[in-house]
Amino acid sequence: MRQDVIDSLVSEATAFMGSRITTNVTVRDQHSHGEGSFPPGQPDAVAFAETTEEVSKLVALAHARALPVIAFGTGTSLEGHVNAVQGGLTIDLSRMDRILEVNPDDMDCRIEAGVVRSKLNEYLRDQGLFMPIDPGADASIGGMCATRASGTNAVRYGTIRDNVLGLTVVMADGRVIKTGGRVRKSSTGYDLTRLFIGSEGTLGIITEIQLRLHGIPEAISSATCQFTDMASAVQTVIEVMQAGIPIARIELLDEVQMEACIAYSKLTGFEVLPALFFEFHGTQAGVREQAELAESIARDNGGRAFAWATDTEARNKLWKARHDAYWACRAMRPTYGALITDTIVPVSKLAEAVLGVKEDVAESGLLAPMVGHVGDGNFHTVILVPPEPDGLARAWALDRKIVARGLALGGSCSGEHGVGGGKRGFLVTEHGEETIEVMRMVKAALDPSGILNPGKLLPDRVGTN
Amino acid sequence: MRQDVIDSLVSEATAFMGSRITTNVTVRDQHSHGEGSFPPGQPDAVAFAETTEEVSKLVALAHARALPVIAFGTGTSLEGHVNAVQGGLTIDLSRMDRILEVNPDDMDCRIEAGVVRSKLNEYLRDQGLFMPIDPGADASIGGMCATRASGTNAVRYGTIRDNVLGLTVVMADGRVIKTGGRVRKSSTGYDLTRLFIGSEGTLGIITEIQLRLHGIPEAISSATCQFTDMASAVQTVIEVMQAGIPIARIELLDEVQMEACIAYSKLTGFEVLPALFFEFHGTQAGVREQAELAESIARDNGGRAFAWATDTEARNKLWKARHDAYWACRAMRPTYGALITDTIVPVSKLAEAVLGVKEDVAESGLLAPMVGHVGDGNFHTVILVPPEPDGLARAWALDRKIVARGLALGGSCSGEHGVGGGKRGFLVTEHGEETIEVMRMVKAALDPSGILNPGKLLPDRVGTN
Repeated sequence: MRQDVIDSLVSEATAFMGSRITTNVTVRDQHSHGEGSFPPGQPDAVAFAETTEEVSKLVALAHARALPVIAFGTGTSLEGHVNAVQGGLTIDLSRMDRILEVNPDDMDCRIEAGVVRSKLNEYLRDQGLFMPIDPGADASIGGMCATRASGTNAVRYGTIRDNVLGLTVVMADGRVIKTGGRVRKSSTGYDLTRLFIGSEGTLGIITEIQLRLHGIPEAISSATCQFTDMASAVQTVIEVMQAGIPIARIELLDEVQMEACIAYSKLTGFEVLPALFFEFHGTQAGVREQAELAESIARDNGGRAFAWATDTEARNKLWKARHDAYWACRAMRPTYGALITDTIVPVSKLAEAVLGVKEDVAESGLLAPMVGHVGDGNFHTVILVPPEPDGLARAWALDRKIVARGLALGGSCSGEHGVGGGKRGFLVTEHGEETIEVMRMVKAALDPSGILNPGKLLPDRVGTN
Repeated sequence: MRQDVIDSLVSEATAFMGSRITTNVTVRDQHSHGEGSFPPGQPDAVAFAETTEEVSKLVALAHARALPVIAFGTGTSLEGHVNAVQGGLTIDLSRMDRILEVNPDDMDCRIEAGVVRSKLNEYLRDQGLFMPIDPGADASIGGMCATRASGTNAVRYGTIRDNVLGLTVVMADGRVIKTGGRVRKSSTGYDLTRLFIGSEGTLGIITEIQLRLHGIPEAISSATCQFTDMASAVQTVIEVMQAGIPIARIELLDEVQMEACIAYSKLTGFEVLPALFFEFHGTQAGVREQAELAESIARDNGGRAFAWATDTEARNKLWKARHDAYWACRAMRPTYGALITDTIVPVSKLAEAVLGVKEDVAESGLLAPMVGHVGDGNFHTVILVPPEPDGLARAWALDRKIVARGLALGGSCSGEHGVGGGKRGFLVTEHGEETIEVMRMVKAALDPSGILNPGKLLPDRVGTN
């Protein structure tokens, strides 16, 4: 019965997609998961869309059959966003990778949802522009919008939410709408752009993005500073933020993470102690001034020698080490798995949160290096999962404890990885039942048959499954 | 019949509001309009709420009777937002003016919706913090959220949208929800905060706001520069933005506006020529560097002597003149009325828009000084309305022409004043019928009986009234 429905959809779609829609098992397997530790969910079919019109037609076909539709970008989600937990049709947008328009005078561009970060920034470099949001993975911009991604630069440039001017979205019935526009601000109508950003494919499928861009700064410099304890490092972060230093990145790595990075990235001149990595953007004079101010704050907090990385090569090595932090963790225990936690607290609670988490980790007996975008109060632990029968369960228990600790301190259960399937259980605690009910009202209004990425983001009502 | 319904609501509300709910005609008149040129709309009753719980109870009473509910802050709206065009209950929030909490470490605060801008900034000054959004009027922060306000500082600090972390909102049936939180970023759930910001009281009534604050800059300096023609001034703006100068304000006044300001604010050293007013925020060295760069760009574009206003007194005089620009316009023709247009275009279209608007004004035979937050592409004309039978009609015709010109250049029909009753007719042109239909779906989901500020923001469907 269900198979008949799938077959009829595939048959109709083949008329305009040709072999770009498939029920091949290997392709379905590839699309059954992201990079998180969740059970895979295989879609019944996968379509490789090349235009908004194709996405619209595909969604209309699924809508007519009440079949689930899941949007898929690069598959780098960590929270099970793309797992087709109820089967259905996965629409892979990776071939929608055209850069449609760049307007240097307005510092904006229009791109298709499948464009990945590195490709966009390579394309823009000659024009002196860049898109600052950097979630680590070379994610698609559409996926970044859908999950409200951010990363190391958010402390200065905001999250993807702050850098999108407008969207093209395919609605649950296949209708296509445009939200926002090209202007820098507007006060006309409901902010549908922001409603779709972070909606994780549950309200519509984003196919095009009007993005705000930034000028490549005239000067960039980096520095590192180590501390004998985490509390002093965190206090430095708080004071740097309060001083209004427009810092571009400020990353905290605990001593375990530093041990991993020193070994993996062959970093020299570092000790196995907590470290802050700084990056400053601005004019030559501005960058110098920012860095001197940060250095004096660090010194007042007991920071050891501020180490400068002014030339491009040293800077790249440093940030490559930061980017590779995850792989450095994995290399500590090559036979282990890994579970990445994501939590965020108000900056004033950061020391309490971080020190508490280190206690949680110690109690668990697990190895879990910590790294964070601490200018925002956002931090991650990479829980290394022992290859033992209860390994994953122990890792999940620690993850849950860490997230609950963040929530208890007035935080959020996800700073940037999203809800997906993984964080649904925390949403009522974080937002309250009444607020979640309003989210459900919005969902019911825009996707009344519930075909868009079912089983994600919104928790089930109590008493239902 | 209707009067019976009103009477029963007033009677029930009196039980918990006492004399703070009234049907007094003077009070109803005071609440029948903002500062725009729209026919007043008198509510049937006015309640002065003091707590979220009272707002909740009042909305529930109105909901049970399907009576319109209009939120009222300071009444400084320019687009007819507060006019009770279908009667009903107006809830005046001006007594909800408590500053509930300030967290200097996190640079945020929680306030009631009726707190006005000046009061908040006075309160924060001793802590070295400020709330940068400055729409000109001493508006309530709740009203600023409801209309997605911005103003002269938006080019650096964003609009109110970018500075709100969370809200308390009373829904159409009286339920109270909290959106967002205290963290700087989060990727958990639909962005209800942004959905209510700019919803103009049509989706819910905002009663509390968690606001992001900024450190008062170490150094502030201002400068002015005049140009022989508007195109050179606009080109200067474009180049300043492209250079990535983090300018705090950049305001363009045309020669007519300068004539008005010179006379009204007794400005010395200015000619009747277009002018740019600049403000720079940062460290001492940073501000100097920014200003020198701006000066060299202005000079390359034929700007005349850059005049500095470094001391506080000179700076205050300058920005007071800018703030008083509206009154300066009115003083040019004391017997005339005034209609303020609001439009915004991509910065690359600014010269074309501004020069076109000056032609429109010339053709109309009306006097209409122009002033704008041009770093965003946003500008206003103050159309002086002759005290003649067709004066207002002529002014409206010019206003419509200017807005249509902005839209034709890829702009928005309102950069910051909102839609209210005044701009509804442009919404389909700007966003498209399909997108407006999605907004209607959201409205129907959250306010199914349509009691929240009816007749505002969303245009009626074609064929209905």
